Amino acid sequence: MAKQKKLSLGIDLGGTKIAAGLCRDGEILKKVIFPTHAAAGFDSVISVILGAVEKVVDGHDHKDIAGLGIGSAGQINPVTGEVIYAPNLKWQNAPLGSTLAKALKLKVQVLNDVRAATLAEHRYGNGRDLENFANIFVGTGIGSGFVLNGQLVHGSTNSAGEIGHICMDPEGPVCGCGNKGCLEAYASGTGMENYVKAELKKGRKSLIKELAESKFENVRGPLIGKAAEQGDELALAAIDRVGEYLGLALANIHTLINPEMILLGGGMMALKQYFMPTMLRTMKKHILPVADQGRELVREARFENDAVLLGGAAIFA
Amino acid sequence: MAKQKKLSLGIDLGGTKIAAGLCRDGEILKKVIFPTHAAAGFDSVISVILGAVEKVVDGHDHKDIAGLGIGSAGQINPVTGEVIYAPNLKWQNAPLGSTLAKALKLKVQVLNDVRAATLAEHRYGNGRDLENFANIFVGTGIGSGFVLNGQLVHGSTNSAGEIGHICMDPEGPVCGCGNKGCLEAYASGTGMENYVKAELKKGRKSLIKELAESKFENVRGPLIGKAAEQGDELALAAIDRVGEYLGLALANIHTLINPEMILLGGGMMALKQYFMPTMLRTMKKHILPVADQGRELVREARFENDAVLLGGAAIFA
Repeated sequence: MAKQKKLSLGIDLGGTKIAAGLCRDGEILKKVIFPTHAAAGFDSVISVILGAVEKVVDGHDHKDIAGLGIGSAGQINPVTGEVIYAPNLKWQNAPLGSTLAKALKLKVQVLNDVRAATLAEHRYGNGRDLENFANIFVGTGIGSGFVLNGQLVHGSTNSAGEIGHICMDPEGPVCGCGNKGCLEAYASGTGMENYVKAELKKGRKSLIKELAESKFENVRGPLIGKAAEQGDELALAAIDRVGEYLGLALANIHTLINPEMILLGGGMMALKQYFMPTMLRTMKKHILPVADQGRELVREARFENDAVLLGGAAIFA
Repeated sequence: MAKQKKLSLGIDLGGTKIAAGLCRDGEILKKVIFPTHAAAGFDSVISVILGAVEKVVDGHDHKDIAGLGIGSAGQINPVTGEVIYAPNLKWQNAPLGSTLAKALKLKVQVLNDVRAATLAEHRYGNGRDLENFANIFVGTGIGSGFVLNGQLVHGSTNSAGEIGHICMDPEGPVCGCGNKGCLEAYASGTGMENYVKAELKKGRKSLIKELAESKFENVRGPLIGKAAEQGDELALAAIDRVGEYLGLALANIHTLINPEMILLGGGMMALKQYFMPTMLRTMKKHILPVADQGRELVREARFENDAVLLGGAAIFA
């Protein structure tokens, strides 16, 4: 008889919601989602997590559960389980791992959320057979995780993979981080929206203005996508620009770490039909000729919303 | 009595010369250098290596030697010891490791030369206490090796670390690889020389013209350095430009792999007094604010000419 695979718990801790799941071998057996209420402070968030865990454990004996893995927003120390700095939780040096371990009498480990998602792809997803890959998430912001020599790369202060903040042009647009010309300022959802708004301000004609009812706050990714569907020139140019900058950044990642594959995920993938051709063309143009031997360079990540949760659970699977 | 450290052999195999050394614990006990005569073909180069090994082994019993490690130019398969492609040796799929192992009855391993140098820094040099660092070599070309999680990063096809070919500007100068705007086209010795030549062609006044006796082939790094010493504006601008581009590239490496330190070596270091201040200022301007906490970001590599040889020997030390 094959040995039953272990049960483990995974948590996706974000600034707005907390998802908790009881998992076995990459499958979520039970999942709950609660609002984080980060403003209520650390103790309150801990209570929400404990409540969520209780729901999904659902009568299973804690001794049958191998451990709890958390993917959290922010800069994490995976050794101590401390959240060093997480702006959207408003936490600094928060003892997340140890507090939960004590309360639950379980082994607990904490990872940065993008690295947890990367672990999920490595164990159960589209990075399963890869020893060297980058998992890039393009949404409101841009982040990434690397697996090299078969291992997650954390970096010396646990901030490896901040691809959103590589500088594409020192004279480029200002990024949320304060620097100029970061990839995120061009190729994230926010970067794309800002470009469209700037063009509209210059008086450029576009269907987007009409769809947004002339309100700048309505100029969001899905609306730009809708305009692109109708062949709107500004919308298509804005998405194409995302492809250009992503292609250049992916080429540089490829040149630096020589991965088998780059996985791509996040909300921007909703517009993939528009930006992927330009992205791949630009990428191929800039990678080393020896590296481009007609092989598949980029693949979509497997997991969408559950990646972080599954990656947390994977730590103890 | 402390156990005597093992003897091992290291070889630096380049397109013009072969250096071989008998080493113990990072010290070279005996070293010889022979011309490669690459044009004479694979068998001839093997003979040169065997002769060099014989010289340095110098009466020691082969059974007292733990193995032979080679740092070779080109793309190497470290598992099979094959030189996949080395333009300056004119080799393709050359069975370097197995041929030497058979002839010498020794364990033999082959690494790419920059990675061998990185291993030397990790074991015996300025990367000794580091788990995550980049070792960047700026000379005629620009290459690098990464140690992450305490291990050398090879990449999926053994071409990781090709930092010389990250694209700094898709509309930039043409690089030796055929692409446009590679770091190497700006910040290598060759890139610096090309910039000076282009400015001279435009009629820019400079002491360099006089020092080079109006011959373009004399416009080389040391001569540009001599002009800089005398305060020549073009020479100083050319070196400063190296600092700008290196600073930007180093910032991006820092953002991506979050190393404890970046080591810098190679012929360009002869001009460090001129380019380092600009390089560090540019780097600090572009790394994530959270990453720059006043700590040392860049350190000079320890080994110069012997890095590759020592790295080869380190494989079996």
